[in-house]
Amino acid sequence: MGVTIKDIAKEVGLSVSAVSLVLNNRPCRISAEKKEQIFAIAKRRHYIPNQAARSLVTKESRMLALILPDIENTFFSSLAKRIEDCCRREGYMLLIANSNDSYEQDKNLLRSITARGVDGLFMIVSNESYQYKAKLIQQLKHLPIPYVMVDRIYEQLSCDKVLYDNEKGAYLAVRHLQEHGHTRIGCVVNTASNNGMLRLKGYKHALEERGIEYNPCYVTEGDYRFESGYEAASRLLETDITAAFVSNDMMAIGFLKKLYELGRQVPKDFSLVGYDNSLSPFVLGVQLTSVAQDPQLLGEEACRLLTNRLKDKDTPPSTICLPPQLVIRSSVEPPLHSPDCI
Amino acid sequence: MGVTIKDIAKEVGLSVSAVSLVLNNRPCRISAEKKEQIFAIAKRRHYIPNQAARSLVTKESRMLALILPDIENTFFSSLAKRIEDCCRREGYMLLIANSNDSYEQDKNLLRSITARGVDGLFMIVSNESYQYKAKLIQQLKHLPIPYVMVDRIYEQLSCDKVLYDNEKGAYLAVRHLQEHGHTRIGCVVNTASNNGMLRLKGYKHALEERGIEYNPCYVTEGDYRFESGYEAASRLLETDITAAFVSNDMMAIGFLKKLYELGRQVPKDFSLVGYDNSLSPFVLGVQLTSVAQDPQLLGEEACRLLTNRLKDKDTPPSTICLPPQLVIRSSVEPPLHSPDCI
Repeated sequence: MGVTIKDIAKEVGLSVSAVSLVLNNRPCRISAEKKEQIFAIAKRRHYIPNQAARSLVTKESRMLALILPDIENTFFSSLAKRIEDCCRREGYMLLIANSNDSYEQDKNLLRSITARGVDGLFMIVSNESYQYKAKLIQQLKHLPIPYVMVDRIYEQLSCDKVLYDNEKGAYLAVRHLQEHGHTRIGCVVNTASNNGMLRLKGYKHALEERGIEYNPCYVTEGDYRFESGYEAASRLLETDITAAFVSNDMMAIGFLKKLYELGRQVPKDFSLVGYDNSLSPFVLGVQLTSVAQDPQLLGEEACRLLTNRLKDKDTPPSTICLPPQLVIRSSVEPPLHSPDCI
Repeated sequence: MGVTIKDIAKEVGLSVSAVSLVLNNRPCRISAEKKEQIFAIAKRRHYIPNQAARSLVTKESRMLALILPDIENTFFSSLAKRIEDCCRREGYMLLIANSNDSYEQDKNLLRSITARGVDGLFMIVSNESYQYKAKLIQQLKHLPIPYVMVDRIYEQLSCDKVLYDNEKGAYLAVRHLQEHGHTRIGCVVNTASNNGMLRLKGYKHALEERGIEYNPCYVTEGDYRFESGYEAASRLLETDITAAFVSNDMMAIGFLKKLYELGRQVPKDFSLVGYDNSLSPFVLGVQLTSVAQDPQLLGEEACRLLTNRLKDKDTPPSTICLPPQLVIRSSVEPPLHSPDCI
């Protein structure tokens, strides 16, 4: 164990409360000489103030926390870094905790992080927590510190929220394929996630707008991982689709791998649009068109909401819905031999 | 603010210390009926025990911390996830903090995380902290909690350490290229990092063993990012090298991109070995041979060292040096028109 105020008090021959007053720069009747002596001992013996004790007094820790679902997912690790940058600029440290996309972990982390005396929280709920929405909403409602829901939100909960418009993003992707003449468009989507459901909604919306009937054979599930994109391609490429909207870049690269194995070239034989815009530099020979959700912007808005909330607890909560951007590269071309090409 | 013990005491009509004894399951003379009443109020009003206050009493938080240099680097985010998995199995929560590869952040995080009353620490120092080694060693030496240095270590510091053998890994990579007949082998390395220096040492070791003179024109710097691999390739591919050892996969993919642009195929025209074995599934058309450092194993060993240390403070510290594995894929072939091909 490190040196305590008690140890310093003993060495300098003063009471614990006197030393505490000096080290916390509180007014007291200690001589300048003794004060100097106390600081010298604290330095020499590497005294670290006990934040647990100090938090009880100051009620402020200058520490914020972020609960995220998957630290290995490049979108979230990138977002975590942006949030941390913003926090540092505002004079806060950031503690990060990984829920492993589990409701149980969300519940436990909320409990224990709150109890550690952080000043505020960025919350990205796990996908599993959508099944336990009512319970988690109760827990969040009674959280003793301010918090912001980031990226994945509960519409029913009244609190500060910031997210990207997922439905709009998918709509932009599919419309782009349609504008190049594609009508038989595959879709790889994760309907276990709320954002995935919204992306499917965007896909359907773009079809409806052009009077194209929804064909369930063209839609398949993926879990946002590389392998599931590869497997989704195996299923979808047995149909007559000429293009696909794959709802994240990691799966799009799995999809590309399958296309490559089948000898089908992008964009000559097949068109593809991804989501996240996170992995394009890794893809050799293919410039993937993708829907970008800038983690920088999301992180900055989240940080702004939370730090404002810390300053002013009484303004009504706000929801910020950021517009995604379609980043057009060369992975989309008109379909081969297509009579209805625009 | 949440409900406090004081609020509960007021509602139930007992003293604060009586309520505290009940909620902490300490022996006391409160009636079973009153006890039940206290727990019921605590539940109804969503009472969360103040961990700051509790830590002062129990001296144990069941919380560990991990300081890492770059949460966006896939090796570290993957390692963080593995460490978190192990901690959870052992009944600990993990808090993660990102130092952004800065000494200033290492220093501040060490101070503030220690003060938050975590039980122990996994420390991956920033690259910058190698320039401030003496200072950081002093700070670590006086840390009031047990810690383990992970992946990047200070040899001078007596503490628990776990790392991969970087010199050996590079040696295996270069020897593999030599065994396929390559003698003019490029090297992309980050000498600003300790592990990079060790990888360069391994490269030189393999050359020496074959009596090949070290040619500084074949060696260039990279900072572990995609772009720097691409730029390193621009420089090295103007020499007469027939193969390259690129000291992480991210740079190897940048290197591949340049090869691709120049119309040179791997492995037909050029052989390549990477490091980390982290990105191979993303590379289309190229199966990259790479040196694997399994984050799972590193995380497990780190966790074992720290939890053992928490149980027994007196055993002498140990250093575990894990052997890297060369994962052979198809990115290495004998050089074209090479008379000295084996």
